[in-house]
Amino acid sequence: MSQLLKQRVRYAPYLKKLRDPKELIPYFKNDQYIGWSGFTGVGAPKVIPETLANHVQENNLQGKLRFNLFVGASAGPEECVWADLNMIKRRSPHQVGKPIAKNINNGNIAFFDKHLSMFPQDLTYGFYTKQRTDGKILDFTIIEATAIKEDGSIVPGPSVGASPEFISVSDKVIIEVNTATPSMEGMHDIDMPVNPPFRKPYPYLKVDDRCGVDSIPVDPEKVLAIVESTTMDKVPPNTPSDSVSKAIAGNLVDFLKNEVKQGRLPENLLPLQSGIGNIANAVIEGLTDANFKHLNVWTEVLQDSFLDLFANGSLDFATATSIRLTEDGFKRAFENWEDLKHKICLRSQVVSNNPEMIRRLGVIAMNTPVEADIYGHANSTHVNGSRMLNGLGGSADFLRNAKLSIMHTPSARPSKIDKTGISTIVPFASHVDQTEHDLDVLVTDQGLADLRGLDPRERANEIISKCAHPDYKDLLFDYLHRAEHYAKKMGTLHEPHMLQNALKFHTNLIQKGTMKVDSWDPLD
Amino acid sequence: MSQLLKQRVRYAPYLKKLRDPKELIPYFKNDQYIGWSGFTGVGAPKVIPETLANHVQENNLQGKLRFNLFVGASAGPEECVWADLNMIKRRSPHQVGKPIAKNINNGNIAFFDKHLSMFPQDLTYGFYTKQRTDGKILDFTIIEATAIKEDGSIVPGPSVGASPEFISVSDKVIIEVNTATPSMEGMHDIDMPVNPPFRKPYPYLKVDDRCGVDSIPVDPEKVLAIVESTTMDKVPPNTPSDSVSKAIAGNLVDFLKNEVKQGRLPENLLPLQSGIGNIANAVIEGLTDANFKHLNVWTEVLQDSFLDLFANGSLDFATATSIRLTEDGFKRAFENWEDLKHKICLRSQVVSNNPEMIRRLGVIAMNTPVEADIYGHANSTHVNGSRMLNGLGGSADFLRNAKLSIMHTPSARPSKIDKTGISTIVPFASHVDQTEHDLDVLVTDQGLADLRGLDPRERANEIISKCAHPDYKDLLFDYLHRAEHYAKKMGTLHEPHMLQNALKFHTNLIQKGTMKVDSWDPLD
Repeated sequence: MSQLLKQRVRYAPYLKKLRDPKELIPYFKNDQYIGWSGFTGVGAPKVIPETLANHVQENNLQGKLRFNLFVGASAGPEECVWADLNMIKRRSPHQVGKPIAKNINNGNIAFFDKHLSMFPQDLTYGFYTKQRTDGKILDFTIIEATAIKEDGSIVPGPSVGASPEFISVSDKVIIEVNTATPSMEGMHDIDMPVNPPFRKPYPYLKVDDRCGVDSIPVDPEKVLAIVESTTMDKVPPNTPSDSVSKAIAGNLVDFLKNEVKQGRLPENLLPLQSGIGNIANAVIEGLTDANFKHLNVWTEVLQDSFLDLFANGSLDFATATSIRLTEDGFKRAFENWEDLKHKICLRSQVVSNNPEMIRRLGVIAMNTPVEADIYGHANSTHVNGSRMLNGLGGSADFLRNAKLSIMHTPSARPSKIDKTGISTIVPFASHVDQTEHDLDVLVTDQGLADLRGLDPRERANEIISKCAHPDYKDLLFDYLHRAEHYAKKMGTLHEPHMLQNALKFHTNLIQKGTMKVDSWDPLD
Repeated sequence: MSQLLKQRVRYAPYLKKLRDPKELIPYFKNDQYIGWSGFTGVGAPKVIPETLANHVQENNLQGKLRFNLFVGASAGPEECVWADLNMIKRRSPHQVGKPIAKNINNGNIAFFDKHLSMFPQDLTYGFYTKQRTDGKILDFTIIEATAIKEDGSIVPGPSVGASPEFISVSDKVIIEVNTATPSMEGMHDIDMPVNPPFRKPYPYLKVDDRCGVDSIPVDPEKVLAIVESTTMDKVPPNTPSDSVSKAIAGNLVDFLKNEVKQGRLPENLLPLQSGIGNIANAVIEGLTDANFKHLNVWTEVLQDSFLDLFANGSLDFATATSIRLTEDGFKRAFENWEDLKHKICLRSQVVSNNPEMIRRLGVIAMNTPVEADIYGHANSTHVNGSRMLNGLGGSADFLRNAKLSIMHTPSARPSKIDKTGISTIVPFASHVDQTEHDLDVLVTDQGLADLRGLDPRERANEIISKCAHPDYKDLLFDYLHRAEHYAKKMGTLHEPHMLQNALKFHTNLIQKGTMKVDSWDPLD
């Protein structure tokens, strides 16, 4: 037992439950329901998943030891190893990594994606385990801790996610105490789950308000074992911003400045939410350069770019359910820890993504779609309507409830044969996660469409003229004008479509490798 | 001045502002922005709209006196007269009536629909009037009152809707005091608008909690005039329930009883929300027959069927933003008024439809779609993806946030040539207002699909086998199996679609009058 472990575990009875991970293998049976801590690749368990993966590989148990696996959002690389070894039967609500996406899209993993604010509560209702005959919800929760308090409660690491809900409905709990990561005690503010009809308001009025507990209570009887983990989180480096993402950020920053000028936003804006990815990073970089003051952040995940926003004095306080930093980012953060830890608060995803808070605070939400259509519906999840990427995440929690709902995307992406083969503006979205009733602003490298108060045809003109890539502008206007001509005859001019041709961009891409259609004929 | 009017108006300075409606005509100019009280056809102004309509007709001003008209939801028949006289330039967020739908679908009225919880706040932000150069939001609010209190504040009638927000951003206010309707003083609990960053939690923990004011404060300086109205609301009679709607209600009641049995709902359920229409009415009738006790209702609109639920002792308390009763229903309600008025509370639509409250209370939401697809996306607004019906209403406010999100619909509807020519279960929704992430349960006369925790292909099998009309089951399975076969090759098996054929049900209906397709060929 390491000295560090003894220091971190301040509840002595757990030290007696310290086990070699291999001793725990017999507890795991095929078809069990398991919750993991973790959110966007940080704070997930590592030792037990790796031990079980080795066990499966060494004993050729691929396909014979499969689990129903729930994680607040994506876990680390361990879930990819599980996918490769056919250890995942069912998975929800969000995942990242090629092996797991591959197995979802070949039908091997039953995956469903759900709003991240809602998934943990629905799990506690028993909605996802109604087929179980033993009345249980989760057999195990495996949770990473950075410390254990004197009362046996668990201090999480860089994410809270769905851990409070998992533990509340779990038969047994296994704790991985990570001694390689600094203790994050004091950074969390956690509301434990309360279900209707007994719920009360979340009392938070500002991003830095605290009213919860700073660790997750657990019945010590439920704790089967603790293990020591010395594996750090490994988030891959971010793609640096390029001219396209910088142009998007520039258009967006100009818009926000004008909203301030028009009196529709205060000078320090309103709390910001920003999704994951290189566009989101570029937007935060753009805000850094814009020298706003006293910004606040209410979001689900903090990326490296927020460190710069803190460093230049623009950002006062940030709250999220996860700090997803790269290895370099964590190094930088830990060097500044004593200052930084007072400016960040981690909450459960039920709270970080809750419509109640997002609407009350008037959050400015910014997320990246796969595609958006001319009337303002957006696809966040399915390529060509069928192939799952990562899942919905919290995009719809934020976009539905924000004061300003913004989506940002390059106007075109490369296909295999054409460097602008994919237009992100399409006549008809091949899958809809965000409806036309949810988007205020769409922004690309070409420009910004302000959709507020516009009817569908006005929106289409705004989106095509401001946002579409020049390679697609004429095609999109051609679709719109043909659809209007047809709809005028039919008396369907509210949101004109030619359904026979509406998905032609997509079928053309599948068949010919580009969305640049030569004709609207559906069979051509 | 009638004696009744003197009794109702307890703030003397307003009595000096009593005007003949015709005197107010000169204040109305082309292209003004106007808010009306009213929600789902009740509580809307009648005298001024009628006076202006007569003025337009008598002076041949059709198309020359047009307004940007905002109403919380639909107003009464007066808005149809305005539509017929080409007096509506722009309209949001919900409407009912053939003339207004016709003018939206022929491109004459610029209409956009928005979540009813969000529309009033977005209006107060100036989002819908950003094109105005004079900095104003609304030129006039015309509001129906059933009394005026000593401080000049307005006691609404059978709906609150968006009136508090309209008045807060209105240059001038005209009050129609309705003396034909009983005073509804004491029935309302109104939260006046507060915008970010100053918002606080709504403190309500139960449907009958009150914390607001019972009338709408207004600066008397803003009140241009009052007029007397003696016109009652006129809601047409409901379609009686038939074997189809009764079968739907039966399936749904069985489900709710089983949820109680499984411990996922308490014996008195959780607060109910129910949409408008004959299916919704039949469901409430079914609940009446089921003899639940101590039910509560948190909804946007109360229909006649709720009177029976009160009368048989099942329902303890109901809150909504509107009591939309038929003439018979109002007669019945007013006979019982002294008892009933203590069991009903009317709130603003921002509160009745607020995600914060719906999620906290764990509401059971029940609404009717136009169509739903095999993966659980639903269309609430657009026939064949283009033709606007009434608007989104509050369906998405409730379905996104409810503990149980339920949609109910007949499995088939008649087309012009085929009595089951329209399947409400389709391969691919022609418009998406409720996403696959929002629906827990779909119920038709054929059966009930419980979608909770299922992946998309499991959902498709559940929906087709349980909910589809027998005339369409084989066709839908054929689509699913072909799409699966195709997607297996493509590695897109998460939510399999053949985009070339996905909208064939709809194009077949447009071209051949039925969704019963003979072939999947898009051009056939």
